[in-house]
Amino acid sequence: MIIVLSPNAPADSAERLLGRIKDAGLQPLHMPGTERVVLGALGDERILAELALDSDPDVESVKPILAPYKLVSRELHPHDTVVDVGGVPVGGSALAVIAGPCAVETQDQLFASAKAAQDSGATILRAGAYKPRTSPYGFSGHGPAGLTILREVADDLGMPVVTEVMDTADIDAVADHADALQIGARNMQNFALLRAVGAAGRPVLLKRGPAAKIEEWLLAAEYLMAAGNDQVILCERGIRTFETATRNTLDLNAVPYVKSKTHLPIVVDPSHGTGIRDLVPPMALAGVACGADGLMVEVHCNPPKALSDGAQSLFPAQFAELMRTLRPVAAAVGRTL
Amino acid sequence: MIIVLSPNAPADSAERLLGRIKDAGLQPLHMPGTERVVLGALGDERILAELALDSDPDVESVKPILAPYKLVSRELHPHDTVVDVGGVPVGGSALAVIAGPCAVETQDQLFASAKAAQDSGATILRAGAYKPRTSPYGFSGHGPAGLTILREVADDLGMPVVTEVMDTADIDAVADHADALQIGARNMQNFALLRAVGAAGRPVLLKRGPAAKIEEWLLAAEYLMAAGNDQVILCERGIRTFETATRNTLDLNAVPYVKSKTHLPIVVDPSHGTGIRDLVPPMALAGVACGADGLMVEVHCNPPKALSDGAQSLFPAQFAELMRTLRPVAAAVGRTL
Amino acid sequence: MIIVLSPNAPADSAERLLGRIKDAGLQPLHMPGTERVVLGALGDERILAELALDSDPDVESVKPILAPYKLVSRELHPHDTVVDVGGVPVGGSALAVIAGPCAVETQDQLFASAKAAQDSGATILRAGAYKPRTSPYGFSGHGPAGLTILREVADDLGMPVVTEVMDTADIDAVADHADALQIGARNMQNFALLRAVGAAGRPVLLKRGPAAKIEEWLLAAEYLMAAGNDQVILCERGIRTFETATRNTLDLNAVPYVKSKTHLPIVVDPSHGTGIRDLVPPMALAGVACGADGLMVEVHCNPPKALSDGAQSLFPAQFAELMRTLRPVAAAVGRTL
Amino acid sequence: MIIVLSPNAPADSAERLLGRIKDAGLQPLHMPGTERVVLGALGDERILAELALDSDPDVESVKPILAPYKLVSRELHPHDTVVDVGGVPVGGSALAVIAGPCAVETQDQLFASAKAAQDSGATILRAGAYKPRTSPYGFSGHGPAGLTILREVADDLGMPVVTEVMDTADIDAVADHADALQIGARNMQNFALLRAVGAAGRPVLLKRGPAAKIEEWLLAAEYLMAAGNDQVILCERGIRTFETATRNTLDLNAVPYVKSKTHLPIVVDPSHGTGIRDLVPPMALAGVACGADGLMVEVHCNPPKALSDGAQSLFPAQFAELMRTLRPVAAAVGRTL
Repeated sequence: MIIVLSPNAPADSAERLLGRIKDAGLQPLHMPGTERVVLGALGDERILAELALDSDPDVESVKPILAPYKLVSRELHPHDTVVDVGGVPVGGSALAVIAGPCAVETQDQLFASAKAAQDSGATILRAGAYKPRTSPYGFSGHGPAGLTILREVADDLGMPVVTEVMDTADIDAVADHADALQIGARNMQNFALLRAVGAAGRPVLLKRGPAAKIEEWLLAAEYLMAAGNDQVILCERGIRTFETATRNTLDLNAVPYVKSKTHLPIVVDPSHGTGIRDLVPPMALAGVACGADGLMVEVHCNPPKALSDGAQSLFPAQFAELMRTLRPVAAAVGRTL
Repeated sequence: MIIVLSPNAPADSAERLLGRIKDAGLQPLHMPGTERVVLGALGDERILAELALDSDPDVESVKPILAPYKLVSRELHPHDTVVDVGGVPVGGSALAVIAGPCAVETQDQLFASAKAAQDSGATILRAGAYKPRTSPYGFSGHGPAGLTILREVADDLGMPVVTEVMDTADIDAVADHADALQIGARNMQNFALLRAVGAAGRPVLLKRGPAAKIEEWLLAAEYLMAAGNDQVILCERGIRTFETATRNTLDLNAVPYVKSKTHLPIVVDPSHGTGIRDLVPPMALAGVACGADGLMVEVHCNPPKALSDGAQSLFPAQFAELMRTLRPVAAAVGRTL
Repeated sequence: MIIVLSPNAPADSAERLLGRIKDAGLQPLHMPGTERVVLGALGDERILAELALDSDPDVESVKPILAPYKLVSRELHPHDTVVDVGGVPVGGSALAVIAGPCAVETQDQLFASAKAAQDSGATILRAGAYKPRTSPYGFSGHGPAGLTILREVADDLGMPVVTEVMDTADIDAVADHADALQIGARNMQNFALLRAVGAAGRPVLLKRGPAAKIEEWLLAAEYLMAAGNDQVILCERGIRTFETATRNTLDLNAVPYVKSKTHLPIVVDPSHGTGIRDLVPPMALAGVACGADGLMVEVHCNPPKALSDGAQSLFPAQFAELMRTLRPVAAAVGRTL
Repeated sequence: MIIVLSPNAPADSAERLLGRIKDAGLQPLHMPGTERVVLGALGDERILAELALDSDPDVESVKPILAPYKLVSRELHPHDTVVDVGGVPVGGSALAVIAGPCAVETQDQLFASAKAAQDSGATILRAGAYKPRTSPYGFSGHGPAGLTILREVADDLGMPVVTEVMDTADIDAVADHADALQIGARNMQNFALLRAVGAAGRPVLLKRGPAAKIEEWLLAAEYLMAAGNDQVILCERGIRTFETATRNTLDLNAVPYVKSKTHLPIVVDPSHGTGIRDLVPPMALAGVACGADGLMVEVHCNPPKALSDGAQSLFPAQFAELMRTLRPVAAAVGRTL
């Protein structure tokens, strides 16, 4: 429920109403607004109705939040959220460029890959210490040792870092080493993980599941926000369709659609979205052209030797060229790089 | 690698060869066979090659396991596995009928639903204490209290019980109360959960993810088996397609296909597979007709009052009628009920 | 609009009302009913409203047809339609078994294949003289010469025949040689073809398009019926999904769903629905178990030599075995074979 | 088969070899090349092998065309094809902007819509006289009368026009009135139509089918080219997926992928690709950013009154704004508008 106070409501009316909402067992929300005081209340619709807030003398209007997601919705929070990842803003006019190898393999491999990415303009480092793999016999990351390397390289280069967490049992360790936690596509509806990561006090990058409708994705973000975390970045990384020429079908429709429904920032991952190195640069340009707040790109110092995702990882020179061609496109849509 | 010993190999050759395999850092497997002694070896292909087992005098032939899944494959294990769920076999000639409500709501609701199911022929009880819900505001189960009710009702009726576990942190509690653990569709590629459940010492029912290819599903089962669990039941519950008339598209093609590829039993869940109560009985018959080893059906004592999945839950009388019509179909394909 | 007359309406009231409907520029329908006289009216909803049929003294009630398809809907026509294909009923208690090779290759090949199918119980012959092929360089059928062979073999064996027509220009030729015309999956929304075939005066077998929602499929059938043809058979042959282990995903959910929505008969094609020979028999059983009115199966006298669809064509002995195992399943669901 | 002649092959060797190819019953192709003489041969692989062209003294090398499509492939024809639509090039550095209403409704509606589109920069007019509609009761276009209006308006404004043809029987009439013929998405595998349109002597715009893999789409284009037409424009208009928030999922991955495989130009239709007016402009920018050779956009003088596709048609002011924002994006990727 969104509650707009009357222009001449007394100064303490917001606090009074939030108290009434809380006393009824509902979740009260204070929503920053420039012109009017706007409050929110989440919970059982029948209790909300019994409160009869619309007949309170200080209330001008009450309207329901129509979307199934509430905290995530632009109805409740009209202004864009800017997420701070270790000092780098994601969501404002400057594009966020998250780059790095699929996995932490060795200190040298990570440093070389990260340095190359940073030299070309990447502002946030990505690399996995815990890797979800379809087969139990695939390389699944170095775990804690990978986290240590990741932090060291990030600190050496002065880059904040985002990395995936796959198990509630690992959240503390990952949060100790990373500036933002990633929920992978296959865990988008791992609700236990969402609740626990939401409570971990770190920004979260939430990848869209390969079979997730946009509404389900925003409800997964709602899990994070409902657990107290308002620093959520969405990441479109392709959906599963009948097309087999590409690894996934990058659903760029989702970018402007999501931006119309939520205040959260969205970045595009053309690496997983295509699975083919040569398609990454054009799809990165396309993602920015349709309004993404940033990119997440796999760059490896030596892709043919990569332990995972080599086929979709850019060579450093390709990434440098991508950044060069991206600049005028970003400018054309009013973004800086 | 599958290693077939010579007919005249000495009695201790199996042990000797398994020792060589183990010493090389590979996983040795002793595979029961009626005519020949057959061994298996899993691990790095190059090390396997170096062992040169095919030149061992006691070895008749060595062939690779072509499927990406190994322990799950019929190549390695030609005979059907029968899983024992608290004394009820799943996978033999008798069909397993797993039934019960979506969720544990109250002791009375569960008892009434389970009793009705059992009276009509259900042999294993299902009900969720932990419910994955798309929205954080949906009913997500009673957790530990639900487990207690579940065990009590199951014991009262003398039924074994299967129930979902969603978080590695809950595995012990669920394993203490249930005869088999369910991995839900949305967690099919929650690899941390798969590894931990695989090590929990309980039979596992592994639902197919809504966007999982059959090969990925069998690889998820491989995670369970690689963690030491050979008591795995597969459950086809519908995939996500463009069709919106039904909740999911029940992929019955998967039943005979899976049975040709793996020795593990497979059951069909027509409740989630259709999402529409009236479609459950015909699709249950179809599932059995094409070779499923059992069914998993939602039955609720009062579906219109169900806290979740009411639209796809059968009324007790519908379930009774389903069991009645199922009997001749089962007989027609050589199964008992 | 469905118009139910009062029990005591005069005998000529139906005629009078149909006249009013026709004069208003709408399509009048006389619907056979055992207890009440029921009329239908199709056309512009506003004109229907202006007619105010519900205030006519002989009318008991007027209700809209909610489905977007009208003539196809069970709302308008509650009783099952039985289509007559050259003397063989499709839609009654006896299962229709349509079998034969993918394509007419030679007189010998067709005769051998058809004879084998008939000997095992097939009642209608299928084979294509015009073959839709993904590549322009594939074998696309013998055209008119194929039609001649098809008719000769069918007459020799005393079987009616169904064959595909792909072009409005060929309808007359095909209708001269076949007992029923098939609209192929890729032409399901070839609306020019639907209109012309609907007017051709032959029963039609309408395959579901690989990406067609059930509602779109029923609307394609509505095209046929709106063109004056009430002899329409639906054929589920699999939809396109992300799964690549099988050629298509046979959507058997569609069988009971379609039967609840329409009076038209539905048959299942497990050959295209799976694309894999060994999956055809179990899926044929499943199709019958969930309520299909018949089967359409590819049988070839020598599948490895087939010019098209060899991998999914049954050997004659496999088809014979399928018919043998089908009999008790059919009996179990109250159908005869 | 691609045949490269030796640098010192005599001048008449090409003619001689083409003669040998033709005499063997194969299709000979003379492919323009700047440095070397390159020939092609299409047909039965075994006959090609028997010709033993690689042992001809004037031949340097012979290599197979690996793609299933041949004439369409870049292997055979490395340079970009530029299609001429009534004087407007599609495929060069200048972006083609095809715009207009979904359907020809009236002369006034078409003129107002086309004029607005042209004033903002559209270079080719689109509008349908024959409209494929899911329901037989929908507005299906004015047919021949619509063609007349279309031609008149196009001539008044000096714009070439592209319009859909749905039936082989209508091809002559449509070709008489249009500068290019459109094959609609639902007819992409209407092979009779493809063959006939391929022979009609007009450029063709071939929409991708909603469930067509890229390879199938290129094979549909091969049908057109094999029928003698080398003026083919591909149009990506969205595919059918599980996502229901948008009408289709615009598959922009297909743009750079297709351009790597074929020499044919490709345009993007963000109107059908999204189905939502407000998503059209950002997706148009994205389409150009990833390399499309043009756009196809629905613009209507009064979308709320449109007889079809109103929800996805731009208001004239929106289209003007789109053209304004498109200009710098086009420039950023080296295209002119």
